[in-house]
Order: sequence, then C-alpha cells, then structure tokens
Amino acid sequence: MISTVVIEAQNLQAFTAQAFERSGLRRADAQIAADVLVTADLRGVESHGVARLHHYLAHLKQGMVAAETNLTILRELPTTLTVDAGNGLGLVAAYRAMELTIERAAQYGSAAAAVCNSNHFGIAGYYAMMALPHNMIGVAMCNTSPNVVPFGGTQPMLGTNPIGWAFPCGTEPAVVVDMATSGISVGKLEVALRTGVSIPLGWALGENGLPTTDASEAFRIRRLIPLGGFAEGTGYKGYALSTIVEALSYALSGAAMSLNVTAVHGRGNQPTDTGHFFAAYRVDGFRDVDDFKRDMDELVRTLRSCPPQPGVDGVLLPGEKEHKTAIQRSRDGIPLHAEVVTLLRTIATDLQIEPIA
Amino acid sequence: MISTVVIEAQNLQAFTAQAFERSGLRRADAQIAADVLVTADLRGVESHGVARLHHYLAHLKQGMVAAETNLTILRELPTTLTVDAGNGLGLVAAYRAMELTIERAAQYGSAAAAVCNSNHFGIAGYYAMMALPHNMIGVAMCNTSPNVVPFGGTQPMLGTNPIGWAFPCGTEPAVVVDMATSGISVGKLEVALRTGVSIPLGWALGENGLPTTDASEAFRIRRLIPLGGFAEGTGYKGYALSTIVEALSYALSGAAMSLNVTAVHGRGNQPTDTGHFFAAYRVDGFRDVDDFKRDMDELVRTLRSCPPQPGVDGVLLPGEKEHKTAIQRSRDGIPLHAEVVTLLRTIATDLQIEPIA
Repeated sequence: MISTVVIEAQNLQAFTAQAFERSGLRRADAQIAADVLVTADLRGVESHGVARLHHYLAHLKQGMVAAETNLTILRELPTTLTVDAGNGLGLVAAYRAMELTIERAAQYGSAAAAVCNSNHFGIAGYYAMMALPHNMIGVAMCNTSPNVVPFGGTQPMLGTNPIGWAFPCGTEPAVVVDMATSGISVGKLEVALRTGVSIPLGWALGENGLPTTDASEAFRIRRLIPLGGFAEGTGYKGYALSTIVEALSYALSGAAMSLNVTAVHGRGNQPTDTGHFFAAYRVDGFRDVDDFKRDMDELVRTLRSCPPQPGVDGVLLPGEKEHKTAIQRSRDGIPLHAEVVTLLRTIATDLQIEPIA
Repeated sequence: MISTVVIEAQNLQAFTAQAFERSGLRRADAQIAADVLVTADLRGVESHGVARLHHYLAHLKQGMVAAETNLTILRELPTTLTVDAGNGLGLVAAYRAMELTIERAAQYGSAAAAVCNSNHFGIAGYYAMMALPHNMIGVAMCNTSPNVVPFGGTQPMLGTNPIGWAFPCGTEPAVVVDMATSGISVGKLEVALRTGVSIPLGWALGENGLPTTDASEAFRIRRLIPLGGFAEGTGYKGYALSTIVEALSYALSGAAMSLNVTAVHGRGNQPTDTGHFFAAYRVDGFRDVDDFKRDMDELVRTLRSCPPQPGVDGVLLPGEKEHKTAIQRSRDGIPLHAEVVTLLRTIATDLQIEPIA
C-alpha cells in the first residue's frame, strides 16, 4: 500500500536548506538550492524535487560536487558571457548565472550565458521563471548524462536535455514551458518505478533495441526515445531539439558532451562538467509591457477556449497545471511519497537535524 | 505517371527572380526572395520552394502583399528591435530583419528582433543560416495560419510555427535545425496530395476528431497534430513549442495571433499580419571560435558514429541530409515535379517571361 505524508512547503524548504547548509553550502546558497527543489515539489514535478535531495547530498559528501559555488567569468561581451561554475551545485550555479544574464539584459535589452563545469540543475523552468518579475522572457537549457538515443540510433548519446521558457502574462498565470527533449524524462521513469506501473510503448528502447513497457529495464539501460518517437516524418524533431541544447550547453560553454557527463545517479565519481545555457529578453525592448501582457492573456484565453477531445476536461496552457498545483500545495501542503519520507528521515539522522515527518 | 524535369539551380534562381521583379519587387529584393525559394529546392525541401511561387505572385498581383518591402523600426534597445514589415513579402522582410539582428549582435554579442505585419517567410532555416558566415549562431521562428490543434483540443488554433537554428561547424557541415512544431508541415501534406500517397496515422485529425490517413481530408480541414502526438506523457511538448513560437511571433511583435493569420493558400484576401522572431549569438562572445567549431565537429562525429537501428543506413545530424542534397543538386540540377513545371510555365505566360522548361 502506498501512503503519503503531507508537509507544509515552508517546513520542507527549511529542512532542505538546513540539510544543504549542514553539507557545507553557504547559507544563502542553501536557501537557493532548497527553493529550486521545493518549487519542483510545489509545482507537482516530484521527479525533480526533494526525492533527489539524497543524491545531491551524497555528491557533496563524496566531494564530487564543491560545497561552495564560485563562478568565474571566462569570456564576455556586453550581452554574452561564459561562466565556469567551479564544479558547484548546479542548482546554485544556474541561479547565479541567470542572475548575471538578467542583469545584462536589463542594461542592453537581451543577454545570454553559457555555463561549464557545473552539475545537474533540477527543473529548467525555475531559472526561466526568474525572468518574470523583471518583465522579461526567460530561457534555460541544460545537458545531462547520456540517456537518449539519436534518431535512428540504438545507443544513448544525448541527455534528456531540457528546455525552459517563461513568458509573463497579465491577469493570467505566466506561460511556462519546462520539458525534456526526450519523449519523457528519467524522472518520469523513476516515478513509474516507485509506483510500480508499466510505461507506455514509445518512451524507451529495451535491450533488444525495440520499445519496452518495462520501467525497470528502461531505467536500467537508459535508452530514452527522443520527442516525436521514431514515427515517419516526425521522429527526427526531438533529436534535433536535443542537439540544439547540446550545442549550446556543451560546445558553446566548453563543458562536457552529454555522452561524457557522469550520471547523477551514482555511476562514476568524477565531476560531471555539465553545461547550461540561459537567455533573457526585456519585453519592453520589443513592446509596451502592458500590450504584451494583454496579448499573452488573449493567447492563453484563446487556447483555453478550444473545444476539447472527448474525455478531456479542457485545453491547458504550458505550465497551467503546475501553477494550479503550486497554489493548492502552497495552501494545503506537499504530499510526499512514503519512500521519499524515508529518504528524508535518513538524511535527518545522517546530518543530525530535526526530521520533518 | 509522374515525371520530373531537371533544372539548373542558377536558371531556376534567375527565372524566379525575374518573376518577382516583374511582379513589382525591387531587383535586390527579387534576388533575395528567389534565393530563399531556390535554397529550399536545393536542400530538398520542395514543399517550401518554387512550388509555392504562384501563391506569392498571386498575393502580389491581388495587392494582398506589398511589392516593396520597407521595414520600420517600432521600438528598440541596443540588442532588441521590433520591426513593422509594411505587409511586404515575408521572404524579404525576414532577410532584412535578420540582417539587422546580425548587425546588432556583431556590436553587442547577441541580439533579437521581433517582426510584425509580415507574411509567410518560407523555410526558417534560411534566416538562421545567414548567421553562419559571421561565426554566429542563428535563430528564426514564424507563426502561420491556424493548422494545428492544441494538445487535447479539436480545433486548429496554432500555426505549424516553425523553428530554425543554425550552428557553424569546422570541417563538418553546419548543424541546421529547420522544423515545424507540428508533427509535420502543411507542405508535407501538399507533397502527399501531389504524389497521391496516404499519410501515416498521427499526422492530422480527420473530421471525426480522430487521426486520419487521408491526405486530401487532412489538407482540407487542417487539423495537424502537434509534435509528440497525443501520446501519454509526451503529447503536450510539441504544443508547448508551438506556444513559444506564438508568444514570440505574436505577442512580442504585435502581429496577429496564428488563429487570425490569413491562410497563404487562398482563404481570405486581407494582409496576413504574420509575425517572426530572430536571434543571433556571436560564438566568440562565449568561446574561441576554433574551439567551438572543433567541439561542434566532435559532436557531429560522435552522433554519426551511433550504431544504427536495423534497416537504417546511419545516424544523420540535423540538416545533414539537406546539406548533401544541396551539394548534389548544385552539381546535377534540381528535379521539379511535372505539376510544378506546369505552374512555372503558367507564370512565364502570365508575366511574359522566358519559360525555363
């Protein structure tokens, strides 16, 4: 029987920040890292939330990841920069790099940053959303360990290479895209494993090079299928998107190629040298902010008004479900799977901090 | 029986430019418009090449599209600009806007432009590739008439909203992504119609709201399925990508929403008010250009080395097939479908210019 424990967001945030601080992070950095993870849980993206806290802490403990994240600018022009993250926590490095990107965009209208020598950064959408309070459009990308086969290929060579975009709206919630460029993310496989369900055909290849429904086999051999599957005429597109993320995260930053990024789940113990890419655009560099937001609201309402397919409640905007979940969980608390609670209790014992549940 | 006629690229270019010039375009603009269309044919993207010339010319003749494309900058910051294309030909407006974007990026490292009051711009990849000789990464997007249903919806509300990205390489051909964010483009339906083949399930919905294999029904009612199909866990992603393109092409530029963009195939006769978005990034704003190109070459060779699936010759990079086709067709000529040749002959008669075949 699966049971869950409901935790208040601020308690989960405090616990997570404390765990990071006990693991050597500066207090401000610990707060940032905790905020990224708890935001994932608030938005219903449990695969990228505190369920992964023990991985991050293990990497810090093993010295695989530096506890202090110090950025060094390797190269820059007024609106571009490449940052060496010093093998710091991806959650912190990405936050700081996006801050720098937003600063530059504020000055010149738009800016972009490539980051090397970093680590997995959690949900891409978090950093894209950092642009919103500045009335900017935000972009975030990241390469990851090799889990995805190229179109027509059988060996995993690309990461799930997520893309995040955030657009401010007026009275409607922001439009937030946050997606792996594979059909699904490894996190989705983890959730399937944890809940014991089989996966749909088309998510991943099995040992035999054909699609499998076995979550455990799929998780073990990591041969995810790119977005669009292998279908005639469409299958190359997810692969193309993944290659864009790879070019920006690897070749533009000087980080490792996905194929050489060490997995975040315990394979190997050297630095991952993960790469990121960020961009920010001042809305008022293009249009009056109120006009833009009014048109975004109009777009949201138009798409939402689309007659749904039978059995579908209604058409949602990208990020709308997550936004609603965040409102509900901010009010009612975050349900944590029993297995995650056990992980958090172990962390509390290991770090000698007060358990939250 | 289907026959083709092979035409030298430079003859097709000269014919097409002459047709545009006779239709009122300035000579330089006519050359640009012809180059975009012939480049599509050279690269094997026949759906977006001279097969559409008669549409562009008809719009010019009807006064739906202005023969002289004059850009007006509506708003700008050092690295952002919004351009009113004056209802000019999208092919020309997009070229000029990308020129401006590249100029700004040259000065500040990166730049972006939103374009309103334009028209369909052909292949997105053309404008992205304009960045390559400048050692820049190029981006191009465009909204289009409503042909695509939102995820979970039954009515076409989004355009096929293409995305183009181009990355310079060293000794390897540039990596060029050029794709509709729907599973397939309307052009692919046109090709299927012309060649009389049925379409795979998953490309488009039929009248009954379910996927159809009938190219003629699919072309008539225009309810393309977003990239990723309606599959569990993946179907929302193509929709999300399309929404990104819509936000940038419509809300950021002030152009019409896809839902209100007049179709390019004869429905309605008012200006389409199509929107575009362009961006350019100086590679040396991030990394030494040679280092970047060496790493891009490495990425290309790594992906190409992936063991292929049974029946697949080998893994290709985005744009590789098109690059090879362009080399071959530059040498051997461009094969034009008999139906396209007939269209070009009619154009020659109408405009009193020398037919090419």
